[in-house]
Amino acid sequence: MENVKVALWGFGAMGSGVARLLLEKQGVEIVSVCGRASNVGRDIYEVLGVERGGRPPVIIANDPEQAFPAGCADVIVQTTDSFVKHAFEKIRFAVERGFNVVSIAEEMAYPKAQHPETAEEIDRLAKAAGVSVLGTGINPGFVMDLLILALTGACERVDRISAKRVNDLSPFGRSVMAEQGVGLSMEEFQSRVAHGTIAGHVGFPESIRMIADGLGWETERVEQSREEIMTTVDRETACVRVAAGRVAGCRQKGVGYVDGQRRIELEHPQQIRPELEGIQTGDYIHIEGVPNISLQIQPEIAGGIGTIAMTVNMIPHVINASPGLKTMLDLPVPRAIMGDMRNLIQRET
Amino acid sequence: MENVKVALWGFGAMGSGVARLLLEKQGVEIVSVCGRASNVGRDIYEVLGVERGGRPPVIIANDPEQAFPAGCADVIVQTTDSFVKHAFEKIRFAVERGFNVVSIAEEMAYPKAQHPETAEEIDRLAKAAGVSVLGTGINPGFVMDLLILALTGACERVDRISAKRVNDLSPFGRSVMAEQGVGLSMEEFQSRVAHGTIAGHVGFPESIRMIADGLGWETERVEQSREEIMTTVDRETACVRVAAGRVAGCRQKGVGYVDGQRRIELEHPQQIRPELEGIQTGDYIHIEGVPNISLQIQPEIAGGIGTIAMTVNMIPHVINASPGLKTMLDLPVPRAIMGDMRNLIQRET
Repeated sequence: MENVKVALWGFGAMGSGVARLLLEKQGVEIVSVCGRASNVGRDIYEVLGVERGGRPPVIIANDPEQAFPAGCADVIVQTTDSFVKHAFEKIRFAVERGFNVVSIAEEMAYPKAQHPETAEEIDRLAKAAGVSVLGTGINPGFVMDLLILALTGACERVDRISAKRVNDLSPFGRSVMAEQGVGLSMEEFQSRVAHGTIAGHVGFPESIRMIADGLGWETERVEQSREEIMTTVDRETACVRVAAGRVAGCRQKGVGYVDGQRRIELEHPQQIRPELEGIQTGDYIHIEGVPNISLQIQPEIAGGIGTIAMTVNMIPHVINASPGLKTMLDLPVPRAIMGDMRNLIQRET
Repeated sequence: MENVKVALWGFGAMGSGVARLLLEKQGVEIVSVCGRASNVGRDIYEVLGVERGGRPPVIIANDPEQAFPAGCADVIVQTTDSFVKHAFEKIRFAVERGFNVVSIAEEMAYPKAQHPETAEEIDRLAKAAGVSVLGTGINPGFVMDLLILALTGACERVDRISAKRVNDLSPFGRSVMAEQGVGLSMEEFQSRVAHGTIAGHVGFPESIRMIADGLGWETERVEQSREEIMTTVDRETACVRVAAGRVAGCRQKGVGYVDGQRRIELEHPQQIRPELEGIQTGDYIHIEGVPNISLQIQPEIAGGIGTIAMTVNMIPHVINASPGLKTMLDLPVPRAIMGDMRNLIQRET
C-alpha cells in the first residue's frame, strides 16, 4: 500500500513542526513544501537538521503551482495564516486541484462564525472537487470547544459553560511579546487595544459558535474584550523584562449570549512568568447542568505541540471524510497516531 | 419533518432514565417499549409519573415481536444486558428488522475485545440490513477510553496511559452492595473473587482495547484484578452498615500490555462513603508522552446520569452513521442535545 502523501503550505514554526512530526510517523511521507523566501531552494532535511536517510530530497518551493502539481499529495497542510480572508485563496487553489486540506488558520476552525459566505463557498468548492477541508488546532479546535462539547455528551442538560485557559508566554520571542503588549504601561496597552493593535487570542468567536451550534443553542451575539494583566512584581524572560506596575500580558474574554443570557464564557489570560504571582497555568472547564462537570488540566495542554499534533492526527480523518467543509464536530475524535498511518485510511471496498 | 422515533428495549433504571430524558427533548418521541414482567401492560407515562399531555399512550409490552413491528422506529435503545453473549440475540432481532441500535451493554462498547466473531457477525448483519449498531455508556464508552483518546489527539507521542475513576457506591441499593462485596470480611471477599462472584466493573478489556486500537498499539494481553477496599472506620449508608476492618468496596484494576510493557493501566475503586477516609471522588487521567497531560474531573462524572445522557446524545450520530458495527472511535463526539433532535439528522440530499 502506498504511503499517505502530505504536502505542506507554510514552513514556519508550525509547518516545520508538522514536518518534523510526520518524519517520525510510519506510513506517511512529505512530498512537497511551499515556503517563504529565506528557505526556498533548500532541502527540508537540511533546514530541519534531520537525517534524510534513503528518502528523496524535498526542495522548498515558493510557487504553489510548482510545489503542488495535481495529484502529488492526499492532503495539503496549510500553516500560513490566522484569518479566513487570508487563507481562502490558498484553500481554493488547493481544493480546485483536488487536494484535501487541513488548515491551522484559527478562524478556519469554524469559518461560518465570522465568514458564513466564504464558508459556504469553501463547502461548495470542496464538494465539487470531491475533497474535504478542515480547520483545526489546539485552540480553537480542541481545548475550548471540542473538549467542552465532548464533556457535555455526558450531560442530560447544559445551562451554562465557562472555561479558562491560563498559559505562560515566557518561551516566546520578541514578536509575540510585542503583539500581546508585554512590557507596556497600562495607558499604552489600553490605547493599543483601542487602536486594535493588541493581537490577543484569535478564535473566541469560532469556539463560542462551535459550542453553541454543537449544543443546538441559537447565539444572539458574541462579545470580546482584551484587558491588561498588570504585574505587582518584577517579571523577566530571556527576551523581556517587565517591572512591577507594568503589563505582563493580555487577558482575552469572550462571551456568547443565548436567550439574553451569558451562556458561554471563555477567558484566556496569556502572560509571562505567571508563577511569580502564584498563578498555576492550566485548562479549566466548568459546565453547569445535569450533572455539573468541573475539569482541570494542569499545566495547560501545550499550545504549539498541541497544534502540531492535532494537525497530524486529523490527517487520516480528513482523507476519509465525505466531501465538503468539515469542522471538528463532524469527524471522529483525533487520537495520537502511534502505528502506521496507512492503517487508518479507509479504502473503497 | 417527522420526529425522530425511538423504541426502548429494557425499562429498568437505565431504560426508564433514557425515556424520562427523551420526553424532555424536542423533535423526538418514544414509540414503543419492551420491558419485563412487573410493568407489562402499563403506560410508560403512568410508570414514570410524567404527564402524558397530548401524546398517545405507550403500553409496555414484553414480546419484542409485538413491541417492535418493522419500521416503527429509527432506533432501538437496548438497556437489558451487560454482556455481548446476552445482548447479541436482541441486537440480531433488531438489526434484521431494520432498526439502528444503541446498546449500553458494557461489552458492546468494544465487542471485538472479547468477542471478535460476534462483532464481525453484527457488522455483517448491520451492513446487510443497512443499519448501524453502537455500544456506548459513560464507562466503558467515554471516561476511561474515548476521553483519554481525545486527549491524545493533542499528543505527538504517547508512551503510557494511566487512569483512575474513584466513585461512591453509597446511592445504590442492596443488590449492588452484594454484587460488589460491600460488608464482607476480607476472607469472604477473596473467596468470592476466587469463585468469580464479585461483579466488579464490566468493561476494562473493552476500554483497554479501544485505547490501544485507537492509538495503533498491538495489545499483547489484558490482565484484570479485583481487590477488597478495607475500611479503617465505620461506614454506613441507607442500606448497609460496614464496621471498621471489613470491606467497603471493590478496587478493579486492568492492565494492557504492549511490547512487553504495562502501557495502559486503569483503576476503578468503587466503595461506600469514600469521604470518611478523606478520599475525593473523581476521574483522573495521566498521559505520559509529548506532551504529558494530567486531567482531573472532581467529582467524577456521574455514572447513571452519564450513561443515560450518552445514550440519548448518540442517537442522531447512530442514525446518521454508515451501515455496520460502530464504536465511539468511528463517530463524531457526543454533545448534549439542547435543540431539536430533528436538526441533527442528516437527510439524504
